[in-house]
Amino acid sequence: MHVAPLVCLQPPSTPARVASLDIVTIGDELLLGLTIDTNGAFLARELAHMGVAVGRRTSVGDSANDIVQVVGDALDRSGAVITTGGLGPTADDLTKPAIAGIFGRELYFDEAQWERLRELWRSRGRKGEPPEANKQQVMLPRGCTVLVNRHGSAPGIFLEDDRGRWVAMLPGVPREMRGLWAEELAPLVRQRLPAGTTPIRSITVRTTGIAESALPERLGDAARGIGSLSLAYLPGQEGVDLRLTSHTIPASDVDAALRAGADVLRIRVGTPVYAEGSMDLAEAVLVLCRKAGITLAVAESCTGGLLGARITAVPGSSDVFLGGAITYANDAKVAMVGVPTEMLARVGAVSREVAEAMARGARERLGASIGIGITGVAGPGGGSPEKPVGLVWVSVDAGGEPVSIGGQMIGDRQEIRFRATQTALDIVRRRLESGAGT
Amino acid sequence: MHVAPLVCLQPPSTPARVASLDIVTIGDELLLGLTIDTNGAFLARELAHMGVAVGRRTSVGDSANDIVQVVGDALDRSGAVITTGGLGPTADDLTKPAIAGIFGRELYFDEAQWERLRELWRSRGRKGEPPEANKQQVMLPRGCTVLVNRHGSAPGIFLEDDRGRWVAMLPGVPREMRGLWAEELAPLVRQRLPAGTTPIRSITVRTTGIAESALPERLGDAARGIGSLSLAYLPGQEGVDLRLTSHTIPASDVDAALRAGADVLRIRVGTPVYAEGSMDLAEAVLVLCRKAGITLAVAESCTGGLLGARITAVPGSSDVFLGGAITYANDAKVAMVGVPTEMLARVGAVSREVAEAMARGARERLGASIGIGITGVAGPGGGSPEKPVGLVWVSVDAGGEPVSIGGQMIGDRQEIRFRATQTALDIVRRRLESGAGT
Repeated sequence: MHVAPLVCLQPPSTPARVASLDIVTIGDELLLGLTIDTNGAFLARELAHMGVAVGRRTSVGDSANDIVQVVGDALDRSGAVITTGGLGPTADDLTKPAIAGIFGRELYFDEAQWERLRELWRSRGRKGEPPEANKQQVMLPRGCTVLVNRHGSAPGIFLEDDRGRWVAMLPGVPREMRGLWAEELAPLVRQRLPAGTTPIRSITVRTTGIAESALPERLGDAARGIGSLSLAYLPGQEGVDLRLTSHTIPASDVDAALRAGADVLRIRVGTPVYAEGSMDLAEAVLVLCRKAGITLAVAESCTGGLLGARITAVPGSSDVFLGGAITYANDAKVAMVGVPTEMLARVGAVSREVAEAMARGARERLGASIGIGITGVAGPGGGSPEKPVGLVWVSVDAGGEPVSIGGQMIGDRQEIRFRATQTALDIVRRRLESGAGT
Repeated sequence: MHVAPLVCLQPPSTPARVASLDIVTIGDELLLGLTIDTNGAFLARELAHMGVAVGRRTSVGDSANDIVQVVGDALDRSGAVITTGGLGPTADDLTKPAIAGIFGRELYFDEAQWERLRELWRSRGRKGEPPEANKQQVMLPRGCTVLVNRHGSAPGIFLEDDRGRWVAMLPGVPREMRGLWAEELAPLVRQRLPAGTTPIRSITVRTTGIAESALPERLGDAARGIGSLSLAYLPGQEGVDLRLTSHTIPASDVDAALRAGADVLRIRVGTPVYAEGSMDLAEAVLVLCRKAGITLAVAESCTGGLLGARITAVPGSSDVFLGGAITYANDAKVAMVGVPTEMLARVGAVSREVAEAMARGARERLGASIGIGITGVAGPGGGSPEKPVGLVWVSVDAGGEPVSIGGQMIGDRQEIRFRATQTALDIVRRRLESGAGT
């Protein structure tokens, strides 16, 4: 194979500017629908943060022809492409030779990367040499910049021609791909941003206990956005998230603009706002409890431990959360939190009285400041005309008059259970935010 | 606009055969990474089941030019395209006019679909007429086949030319898209399959408690596949799934072939196999318990209710699962399941003795056949040299000698917690499968 003279292999001394690029994800599993393309979404989000527009995302199979065609077209269109996948040690890993071919580069055996791979092999406690097949992973296109992989065996590759057109190849394993992006590729892309690039950035204000259709009225003239910040309504089982996005504000001002915008949303929406970003309601409640020196205990029937699981999913929850009871069977309600047998016979397990007895029992038995009781019909079976699937009673007891909410939850079994925990947490949050202690 | 003579608008009397097609998903949110493209993966999977290969998947933004270019290229390549998204009532919904343009068709106002939309409006309890903007959703290309939407307001469209090339447009809302696929589009695609098309079908055999690297030895000559069935290893937090896939076996025989292949895997791997398909280990355990007339109770420390939540996520779990205790704080271990204070002081909360006392206490207090106790350090804080983050003790008590397993779990807080529940369920499963009752 002819080796191009070395001078042509040098990237331009001043990198060409990239305002838009294409993402190509490679692998038969994507065309078979066996893998959901989270890599492409991750890269798109990261690039948006930088202000780089993604022109197109394409998924192709493990076919050299298809890779050459898609990456070649994308280079012609955007001048810059990021690929994921096809860098493994097996015969269907074709990304490198296909793309090296587009750039007219031959592959060579890279001794330094082979040494890295041997060290990785030994550091994982394996004996002897890595299998011969791994040598394919360190065959690199001449003149490339190696994107060092500290998370696995496949090095990434950045290949740029003398016109400043480039392709970056990342491995398909999400953990490795994310590591290489952050540590190696993002700095190279940042060097190539045109002057004056404005980042695409968002802030999310989370609400719960309010219908999507009731939000515009509270938001008033902010219902469609604030200044140049656009507003999106994202309903989910946790409630409705409000996402403000900036496309045009310079990097120097975007944080302040988003902060100011989020404050407007918080003030206008009021009580339903419980957090910003990705913070879960359970975490927000733990923060409030910690501040007030309050401890929590639970008694769960239809949720079967889900509320405890949500609370203890938050690291450090042990200073607030003491524990509780999973009282799925009626006998468990009696034995574990002292619900009177007579009450269960009289009003049934799914009732205000039983929810209140469970909350009180959990608080007293655990010696907590606040007890939470949840009982309901999660379905799909077990419903009746008087107590249909979805009926849930939630009670919060802090020693005085309990706060209890009963109602019909909508959704399937998992949604009903999740919404029941969300309702319970939100009663506690509103109580603490209103300044009521225990 | 010139209207093509009606004879050209008729699809061919015998539909053209399609062996491969392209999927195009449309929407700016896909290029910003704000939405993960689950629609494309769903369609790819469904098409694979039919035996239709997907040539390429592309995501484009809400730009008429880009849609025309991508769909036009895909039609040239495959002759058949399915799109999702861009059928809504707002100005950025451009799919229909763009694609109608490719086919040289003009849009007309469809009275029948408008009636459907008005009925939907009223059936949702809304007053008056639907907003003017909704009229855009019933502007349809002349000569199209309407894909009736029983799940929302945007009708889908199937547009075919006289050479048998076609584009099917589905809405982007996943629930609507899936409904239209199953009820309307799948039958049209099935009519167009070439004779002798073989489906791409899989069966998954789930294993837990065995390392991926230990499976090939057990599988022997089935380690790389069985006959024409290929084998993939899919490690996850639940264990390693083994997926057998058929590409070449005719539809009449593929079920039998996959069944026989799965049986070979089950026999060779043995005990680590707990289920097939997507069945969770908790469900497998419930099936075994129900058969043996066994009831379960739990006492959870580091998992904080997660085991109970997993078990009660399965509908109908109430005939087996009685409940239990969430004993996050040490005092809760004493109060709720009777762990001796002296024992906690002597050996600490994360220990074999405490796990066993929790399991026994849960069994006795709830009156269950089997009690499960879990205690550990889920991290990221709370570790010590003697009891590092990830150390977990699990005990299963059925009245005789308990079965207890202690060890170091790998992963972050959520992985450690999940693996602890998986270990606990697997002890119960192995016990019941071995024929031991209580």
